[in-house]
Amino acid sequence: MASILVLHGPNLNLTGTREPEIYGRTTLAEIDERLHAVARERGAVIRTTQSNHAGVLIDTLHEVRNWANGCIFNPGAFTHYSYALRDAVAAVDYPVVEVHMSLPAAREAFRHTSVIAPVCLAQVAGFGARSYDLALLGLLQSLEGRT
Amino acid sequence: MASILVLHGPNLNLTGTREPEIYGRTTLAEIDERLHAVARERGAVIRTTQSNHAGVLIDTLHEVRNWANGCIFNPGAFTHYSYALRDAVAAVDYPVVEVHMSLPAAREAFRHTSVIAPVCLAQVAGFGARSYDLALLGLLQSLEGRT
Amino acid sequence: MASILVLHGPNLNLTGTREPEIYGRTTLAEIDERLHAVARERGAVIRTTQSNHAGVLIDTLHEVRNWANGCIFNPGAFTHYSYALRDAVAAVDYPVVEVHMSLPAAREAFRHTSVIAPVCLAQVAGFGARSYDLALLGLLQSLEGRT
Amino acid sequence: MASILVLHGPNLNLTGTREPEIYGRTTLAEIDERLHAVARERGAVIRTTQSNHAGVLIDTLHEVRNWANGCIFNPGAFTHYSYALRDAVAAVDYPVVEVHMSLPAAREAFRHTSVIAPVCLAQVAGFGARSYDLALLGLLQSLEGRT
Amino acid sequence: MASILVLHGPNLNLTGTREPEIYGRTTLAEIDERLHAVARERGAVIRTTQSNHAGVLIDTLHEVRNWANGCIFNPGAFTHYSYALRDAVAAVDYPVVEVHMSLPAAREAFRHTSVIAPVCLAQVAGFGARSYDLALLGLLQSLEGRT
Amino acid sequence: MASILVLHGPNLNLTGTREPEIYGRTTLAEIDERLHAVARERGAVIRTTQSNHAGVLIDTLHEVRNWANGCIFNPGAFTHYSYALRDAVAAVDYPVVEVHMSLPAAREAFRHTSVIAPVCLAQVAGFGARSYDLALLGLLQSLEGRT
Amino acid sequence: MASILVLHGPNLNLTGTREPEIYGRTTLAEIDERLHAVARERGAVIRTTQSNHAGVLIDTLHEVRNWANGCIFNPGAFTHYSYALRDAVAAVDYPVVEVHMSLPAAREAFRHTSVIAPVCLAQVAGFGARSYDLALLGLLQSLEGRT
Amino acid sequence: MASILVLHGPNLNLTGTREPEIYGRTTLAEIDERLHAVARERGAVIRTTQSNHAGVLIDTLHEVRNWANGCIFNPGAFTHYSYALRDAVAAVDYPVVEVHMSLPAAREAFRHTSVIAPVCLAQVAGFGARSYDLALLGLLQSLEGRT
Amino acid sequence: MASILVLHGPNLNLTGTREPEIYGRTTLAEIDERLHAVARERGAVIRTTQSNHAGVLIDTLHEVRNWANGCIFNPGAFTHYSYALRDAVAAVDYPVVEVHMSLPAAREAFRHTSVIAPVCLAQVAGFGARSYDLALLGLLQSLEGRT
Amino acid sequence: MASILVLHGPNLNLTGTREPEIYGRTTLAEIDERLHAVARERGAVIRTTQSNHAGVLIDTLHEVRNWANGCIFNPGAFTHYSYALRDAVAAVDYPVVEVHMSLPAAREAFRHTSVIAPVCLAQVAGFGARSYDLALLGLLQSLEGRT
Amino acid sequence: MASILVLHGPNLNLTGTREPEIYGRTTLAEIDERLHAVARERGAVIRTTQSNHAGVLIDTLHEVRNWANGCIFNPGAFTHYSYALRDAVAAVDYPVVEVHMSLPAAREAFRHTSVIAPVCLAQVAGFGARSYDLALLGLLQSLEGRT
Amino acid sequence: MASILVLHGPNLNLTGTREPEIYGRTTLAEIDERLHAVARERGAVIRTTQSNHAGVLIDTLHEVRNWANGCIFNPGAFTHYSYALRDAVAAVDYPVVEVHMSLPAAREAFRHTSVIAPVCLAQVAGFGARSYDLALLGLLQSLEGRT
Repeated sequence: MASILVLHGPNLNLTGTREPEIYGRTTLAEIDERLHAVARERGAVIRTTQSNHAGVLIDTLHEVRNWANGCIFNPGAFTHYSYALRDAVAAVDYPVVEVHMSLPAAREAFRHTSVIAPVCLAQVAGFGARSYDLALLGLLQSLEGRT
Repeated sequence: MASILVLHGPNLNLTGTREPEIYGRTTLAEIDERLHAVARERGAVIRTTQSNHAGVLIDTLHEVRNWANGCIFNPGAFTHYSYALRDAVAAVDYPVVEVHMSLPAAREAFRHTSVIAPVCLAQVAGFGARSYDLALLGLLQSLEGRT
Repeated sequence: MASILVLHGPNLNLTGTREPEIYGRTTLAEIDERLHAVARERGAVIRTTQSNHAGVLIDTLHEVRNWANGCIFNPGAFTHYSYALRDAVAAVDYPVVEVHMSLPAAREAFRHTSVIAPVCLAQVAGFGARSYDLALLGLLQSLEGRT
Repeated sequence: MASILVLHGPNLNLTGTREPEIYGRTTLAEIDERLHAVARERGAVIRTTQSNHAGVLIDTLHEVRNWANGCIFNPGAFTHYSYALRDAVAAVDYPVVEVHMSLPAAREAFRHTSVIAPVCLAQVAGFGARSYDLALLGLLQSLEGRT
Repeated sequence: MASILVLHGPNLNLTGTREPEIYGRTTLAEIDERLHAVARERGAVIRTTQSNHAGVLIDTLHEVRNWANGCIFNPGAFTHYSYALRDAVAAVDYPVVEVHMSLPAAREAFRHTSVIAPVCLAQVAGFGARSYDLALLGLLQSLEGRT
Repeated sequence: MASILVLHGPNLNLTGTREPEIYGRTTLAEIDERLHAVARERGAVIRTTQSNHAGVLIDTLHEVRNWANGCIFNPGAFTHYSYALRDAVAAVDYPVVEVHMSLPAAREAFRHTSVIAPVCLAQVAGFGARSYDLALLGLLQSLEGRT
Repeated sequence: MASILVLHGPNLNLTGTREPEIYGRTTLAEIDERLHAVARERGAVIRTTQSNHAGVLIDTLHEVRNWANGCIFNPGAFTHYSYALRDAVAAVDYPVVEVHMSLPAAREAFRHTSVIAPVCLAQVAGFGARSYDLALLGLLQSLEGRT
Repeated sequence: MASILVLHGPNLNLTGTREPEIYGRTTLAEIDERLHAVARERGAVIRTTQSNHAGVLIDTLHEVRNWANGCIFNPGAFTHYSYALRDAVAAVDYPVVEVHMSLPAAREAFRHTSVIAPVCLAQVAGFGARSYDLALLGLLQSLEGRT
Repeated sequence: MASILVLHGPNLNLTGTREPEIYGRTTLAEIDERLHAVARERGAVIRTTQSNHAGVLIDTLHEVRNWANGCIFNPGAFTHYSYALRDAVAAVDYPVVEVHMSLPAAREAFRHTSVIAPVCLAQVAGFGARSYDLALLGLLQSLEGRT
Repeated sequence: MASILVLHGPNLNLTGTREPEIYGRTTLAEIDERLHAVARERGAVIRTTQSNHAGVLIDTLHEVRNWANGCIFNPGAFTHYSYALRDAVAAVDYPVVEVHMSLPAAREAFRHTSVIAPVCLAQVAGFGARSYDLALLGLLQSLEGRT
Repeated sequence: MASILVLHGPNLNLTGTREPEIYGRTTLAEIDERLHAVARERGAVIRTTQSNHAGVLIDTLHEVRNWANGCIFNPGAFTHYSYALRDAVAAVDYPVVEVHMSLPAAREAFRHTSVIAPVCLAQVAGFGARSYDLALLGLLQSLEGRT
Repeated sequence: MASILVLHGPNLNLTGTREPEIYGRTTLAEIDERLHAVARERGAVIRTTQSNHAGVLIDTLHEVRNWANGCIFNPGAFTHYSYALRDAVAAVDYPVVEVHMSLPAAREAFRHTSVIAPVCLAQVAGFGARSYDLALLGLLQSLEGRT
């Protein structure tokens, strides 16, 4: 049974309440709930964490090392400069999928680059809250393919 | 019933035969077949085209304007410089999802930027041949959400 | 009697149907018709070609070498990167005028540069479909001045 | 009856006497005369000013605000750095057409960019002294199209 | 017996007729003829193709995969931006030698970089039409060295 | 009655003790005290927080969303790279004024840019500890202007 | 009694009549009037000048050297390129405060940098016409602090 | 008796367990132990802290201000972008030595620059876990030289 | 008898009163006087002008066209961005020598480039007020060499 | 009878002993010997020099001016920065062919540019030790073509 | 018994006599003497060379190939541009430690990058003359670790 | 009596024989002779050295430290990259004047920057061989001013 960490970065606690024309009206709790359902259906289990602290995200990536088989990670604005998070992703053994609700490349110039993507397995972006579901699906399929 | 164009860019005709450690051993025909199956299951229909000519890809994007509800597009190396393809994607009314089998950001520097993504709906990359399935799934869900 | 090639680049076949607030509602056929009229009035003759293929545009520039006295060329998005088109324009003997319906400099950053302009005679941009008429007028006057 | 400001920037007072192989032998007085004739023919009236002072050009753009319906402006070397002129063009209500006798893009690298073009209606360049006539023609047609 | 593809990129069909002070007066037909002779002498056989279409060049590189032992490729202006051609060269198994008649580094700034060279075996440039002969010689020697 | 958050970023806890020739000898406690006085005088109320943790600053910006009418924020060195703080400022509804005691533009090159300013209402810098007072004054006037 | 020069740069004579959604509807005369009032209240005296000529602004900065104790300067678009004004500010002994009504950093990329700020005492921006009042207040307090 | 802070940045808690071919198999606990021994031998005392939180590292640098005579600091990935840490190092009075186990310059491009080094006393990198010992030795010698 | 224009750019009217440790204590009047003496000695005559207005400097360069055999020009800060002055220098027939009292390359980064030098005959910098004398000497010798 | 200088730059004395997987196992002595044979066969004579000193290479280029008809030059790492060598190549009258055993463009980024190529006749790279033979052949043919 | 080359680059012969506030007053002879002592103590032997000629440094690196087990190298200003030295370091088999007396990153911008470091084992900088001792210590320990 | 070193960099031994349209026909021997005469007249003495070796130029700058009161230095192409020469100039106590016969800024882009100028006293360029005379004059005057 696959164990998946779902990690939400800075400002994502406001999801569903802020700039709904970009991010939609689904709240983070609702997203997590749906991910639990998707996981259950496929015989997997997830743990979810949100933090505005890069340090907490790094700590979490480290702590689940003996439990997690993979991770779905929306690094929010940390995507564009947190080399410490990049090193954390590179340091753990399980595959990480980068997720974004909107398409960073369609927004301001500084959002065109991800310093974390080069050490990730895959990326899903632009499907709103559904980006998470697709990332989970893809990650679980990919883990099945490995066994 | 949703009608989806599946567009494969340059060198993708060699998929499954070239650099299998990056792109896997699934051929393009097998990918297209699976996409037909996925579409059928969800009551949708797809048309698939591969070309090494940017002009043919632009022509195809134009020609399906009255038929297509959406498009899944792997622009291959055109991703990084074909502003003509970007204009074609911007000019048609249906949403386009950019797909890559490997993660461009994990490879050479020139692959870090997509000139097409800013006018796309969404992006899926890094799940190998499964990137297409997830993109189709996400696009169909997104189209359902619009009606 | 001056013989002028009128060359329309990628996506211009959609003129009049796409983003009318930028490009107006005149179709390419109507533009070509008016150019024929303008030419006739001034005792000149034109041939018009549109293609989404850079290769076809290059072939056409080559083929008319023994017939054309000048060319009006809207390279569309090829303006910003097609060094092959630049070489084609540089290789033929007749003068080429670069035309744009909108003003590229007023749009996205990548549109600020033309790699083709440095080998052109002149440039007209921003007058909508009328940019073509003015370019033809200017080219014909310039050819008269040469004799 | 359209009222058009014709504005000539720095060093253009030497037109016809300096580097004739680039700019031709027509003097500025002759250019202005021809523009008066063109305007008269089309039922329009023009005022012409030349200055080597950016401040005078800005003052003039401001002063004619209640009289002018449009402006033809050759900013000379100010094209490439005078953000103050750009703001002046953006601040007045009437449309401005940027004019150059030679094609800046065909000369030194610093001439490839115009900081003024992004706030202009249109651009004509490369037809020598005839660039002004075509710009006036295009501007008058454009003003007619607005009424 | 070695089988070699000789590929000529955009505008090279004009060789011998255009800018002879840079490229000399030998036509492409004469170059191909001499290459046939050189090949024959060394017990090799060549096929030659010229196209102004990047897509045709890619198709040709793919099509000869089961026949060719190597390729001599003058990508013309595609040298400087066609990442699709680069991927095609990288995707085929046989070695490719980049050829230029003049020395790109001795011309405009944009010609200083080749995006194709990093995936080539070798480069010959600056010997005019003789660049091809030397490239063929070098490629044949290199293929002999491999057996 | 306006409610204003006063937020001090990294290393500002040392204010008054470190590099007094740049930042003066007023301590952060004294600055906060004076801001309380200024607020009281104008019928407003303030809350003050200092943290060296970007995460704590983001949390605080979120937490006061239902209480604050505005914010005075000295992001310290986070000014120059914390896109997560920028997103937090953009995500809350109340206006934020960026404050600096010294003038960043007068110091090292990396201090010339603020990634947070583009989403702020206003900026005050260079008046030492008085920068805060002026920012508070300006913010309160601006809030009055809104009602 | 402090003597303060108030200097308004290019296009600011149009203040209150142009783009009111950015700059508000207060005219420059009204701004100057209010500054006179603020100065009087605090026992100071001001002189105000507006010019679209960089040269006049430099001359004015020089001329008041024996009279002025400080200066409030809105350099308008000169902010971003006039190194001559920067040298003038650096050459006079009295402190200069840079003022902007809107926040340059929130607008086009070229407005992100001030070449004048590095030689100024302080900066106030984004409070509309009130930016001037705050700058005057801050400057007077700072001058008091020096005695 | 010298008092030295030993500060370990993000992901260094995994030292000895992650990418041993780069960082060796010595754990952080073993490194700290050996540093205690080295210090004792030389009549010095050390305190050690590791954190994945930039804020905790800044807090620690501040807190030991009255106790520490110097600091050995491995900022991990914070090396390359944490201007807040740079300011913290600049704000404290004791000298700081930057330490890295591997040589950043021998790895990815973004690791070539340290934003912290310009405010440090010295740097040691590339000797694996021994980098710490040498840094401590060098710092102690340097402190002795000062008395 | 050679006729030489001596042109002083912005802020040079303050020479001798401002930053004497960089520019010395000789006033502009004293510099001009000495240049008159040097000229007289060598049978030449000079005219001197100082202005803070780029437009006045351009006008002056134009006006002396029928009188001047050469020019000594200290463009001050205009050196680094006034392309209009560059065009004026390029447009006149007589040779121009660029002069600076201090060495621009030894100061701020933006002073490292001169946009005017590429169209000048020669450059003298760093000898304080004596730079002018040497430039005059060099220019006169050069003019003699031409006859 | 053609006289050709063969010049080997820094570190090439180690050829055949260092990184054989890149440069092969042929020593420099063996390369020179083969070049002597090739020359003899074609009625030419060569002189060979290797040096790790840029100065010696420049001296040698100068000294053979009255003897050499051409030069084959492998500048090694000097290729990428020695403008002094570039000037030496430009200063001598005989043509110089740049040679590399491996393809610089296929290695580190700094190797992508040659500052010497713009003043060379031609370039051969990537054929291992055979690059020299082909360069000699090409140079001799080119010299024959000149007579 | 380890044999270590100690290599001093350009201008280091002046050590102890030039800019003592940066480099201290210890002369190069004294540094070498101390290194001999340190080596002797640890059963190692050193050879020292100083040269202002890049060529001599390369020659020396080559010549000791059969004798040296490692090298301590202060490349001085060659650090920042001598790719020939980089290739020499890469070409020899023994490990090289880059040494600097001051911290390059704390000085001018061009000193922030080392082109030699990417092929070195380790780096020590900023401890004045003691940097050498620590580098030798580290290198000897590292060599012991290898046996 | 002033003692002046005259230092000529790479390729200057060819002066008078190479590209006379840029550098004139005066040989280096003639230049040196004239400088001896100029020096004698003014009671000074000079020593002259030319070398194509950066190392020899550095050695010479060092060796004359106890004899020279100043230096006139034409660094040739070393101007643009030799940081080692820059350090040598910075390390000696006597003032150095950078000399060029032509104006580097009027030639290729890489010649626009001098890495040596920032540590020089002054610069003279563009007067052909007379640049040396003026530099010597200026240096002697400057030395007199110091006593």
